[in-house]
Amino acid sequence: MKKVINQPADFVDETMEGIVAAYGDRVHFLDGDRRVLVSGYPSKKGKVGIVTAGGSGHLPLFLGYVGAGMVDACAVGNVFASPAYTKMASAIRAVDSGAGVLCLYGNYGGDKMNFQQAIEDCEFDDIRCRSVLACDDVASSPRETAEKRRGVAGILYAYKCAGAAADQMRSLDEVAAVAEKAVANTRTMGVALTPCIVPEAGRPTFAIADDEIEIGMGIHGEKGITVEKMMTADRISEILMEKLLADLPLKAGDEVSVLVNGLGGTPAEELFIVYRRVAQILGERGVRIFMPHVGEFATSMEMAGLSVTLFKLDGELKELLRAPASTPFYTNANK
Amino acid sequence: MKKVINQPADFVDETMEGIVAAYGDRVHFLDGDRRVLVSGYPSKKGKVGIVTAGGSGHLPLFLGYVGAGMVDACAVGNVFASPAYTKMASAIRAVDSGAGVLCLYGNYGGDKMNFQQAIEDCEFDDIRCRSVLACDDVASSPRETAEKRRGVAGILYAYKCAGAAADQMRSLDEVAAVAEKAVANTRTMGVALTPCIVPEAGRPTFAIADDEIEIGMGIHGEKGITVEKMMTADRISEILMEKLLADLPLKAGDEVSVLVNGLGGTPAEELFIVYRRVAQILGERGVRIFMPHVGEFATSMEMAGLSVTLFKLDGELKELLRAPASTPFYTNANK
Repeated sequence: MKKVINQPADFVDETMEGIVAAYGDRVHFLDGDRRVLVSGYPSKKGKVGIVTAGGSGHLPLFLGYVGAGMVDACAVGNVFASPAYTKMASAIRAVDSGAGVLCLYGNYGGDKMNFQQAIEDCEFDDIRCRSVLACDDVASSPRETAEKRRGVAGILYAYKCAGAAADQMRSLDEVAAVAEKAVANTRTMGVALTPCIVPEAGRPTFAIADDEIEIGMGIHGEKGITVEKMMTADRISEILMEKLLADLPLKAGDEVSVLVNGLGGTPAEELFIVYRRVAQILGERGVRIFMPHVGEFATSMEMAGLSVTLFKLDGELKELLRAPASTPFYTNANK
Repeated sequence: MKKVINQPADFVDETMEGIVAAYGDRVHFLDGDRRVLVSGYPSKKGKVGIVTAGGSGHLPLFLGYVGAGMVDACAVGNVFASPAYTKMASAIRAVDSGAGVLCLYGNYGGDKMNFQQAIEDCEFDDIRCRSVLACDDVASSPRETAEKRRGVAGILYAYKCAGAAADQMRSLDEVAAVAEKAVANTRTMGVALTPCIVPEAGRPTFAIADDEIEIGMGIHGEKGITVEKMMTADRISEILMEKLLADLPLKAGDEVSVLVNGLGGTPAEELFIVYRRVAQILGERGVRIFMPHVGEFATSMEMAGLSVTLFKLDGELKELLRAPASTPFYTNANK
């Protein structure tokens, strides 16, 4: 196992220490707890708080979006594992300023169960909470049961729009409605080329042949739709786009943001080769692209592969997407 | 060879098409030439132009720093190969507005030869040029012959400071003096864990055993200083820092910016584990850190590994480093 780490059991805590060593002027631990990261950016009094949570190993996800105009706090779990509900509850309490808290996170069993427990605890203290779950991964369940889908890279758009809505001092129900609309308008399809290694396990999470790829694999190595022989970047892009467009029909004049997300081991050059073909396909349909994102936004450590996300815009979502935001891992200086 | 590409010969052009498809509102090809990228950001009349150039396969290097407050144009070569001198000359001509042009690039034979030819051509047209070469890679030559060192990730700091100086409407000689000071104050040491594959070659650029790492390897796989057995992140950090501090002595009260740069295949989590130890070592010496950079700034496609750069600051360099800058790959919104 060739990883630049110390003791595998210290992987998450040392990563967190490094992040706060680098960006301690902007984010900090809650009462010294390395598993709860809170924003140090100035925040408006009476703003709705936004909390997220999730397992480690996905940087910048999830904690990388803690900052101004996005998420206010994040509870941090072990690699690919949900944080304890007590950490989520601490995060909720830390960011409530009376207007309530939106819990915005990916649709995974552990996170769901723990957030429910955390919210129960916090509501006992009269903190009003709403939950919105990202479920953008088209590969993980058919359209009829879209609520069962996993949350992957597309959660970025929900963070961004809900964060901007909270910044505009909208109410908890209004911020939750924005997050719900963002989730409803987001679809992601991924492809994996290589596995990754969870430090404490020390061996690859799954096997994939040297000449094969897996379409639809999840960010923890969850089984995809099909295993295929390696193919060109254009063909991969076309397959991902076919699945996405079958699920989120787009017509001429529609506008989307596109996110081409690297899973960790795939060079940026290859992400742009995929973006090129995705933009061609959308262009042929007369669909316009606004604020594309190409890079690493939700990774699986060293896994090679990528995902394509389409985020269908309307006037409100477009305005919220382009609003300023600043975190140690994400900046939008309002174009 | 499991790369998300089409024909290997199209790798660079298709990457470039993807970049302009994504960011065409901010950067564009010069007269449709996919090998010359120029800034589309508003530029002050009479500003000194800054041109860079280099081989492909290092994103965000080199072209990723074309934008506002950094570089004005970049000539783009094949993977790990210098661009033709004609492309450099076109870039120089495109950005000269009468105040002259700084050619700021890494110290490699091909780039040097081609830039010399390009500058000769442009001076024939009465465009005044100055050259400054980044040579921050401590591993590539002893201190006595520092001018022979290769340029690696630390060139970021020269781009940033020279770009800010040009934005302040300083003269060509003044901008070149800033670039020279930035280069003189920058040291980088890298370590490689795995090789990368040049698309047209189709096989790894070098071999490295499953339990070994190479200290001091260059970003094209140039031979390093020693091959060692895999070791902890802390030990790797200590070895890199020992080499850096032997070459750039720092005392209590000194201030540096630190860049922990991923070479492509190494997860962000691991970069922060290294940053954590680097910050400890500097802290123990009473050296302060300003504006750390942790992420991918100069890669070698899918190569796993990282480099650590120290950039010693004085009042002038600190002010220039913190000045606003905006490119599709780099944003500093002035803290």
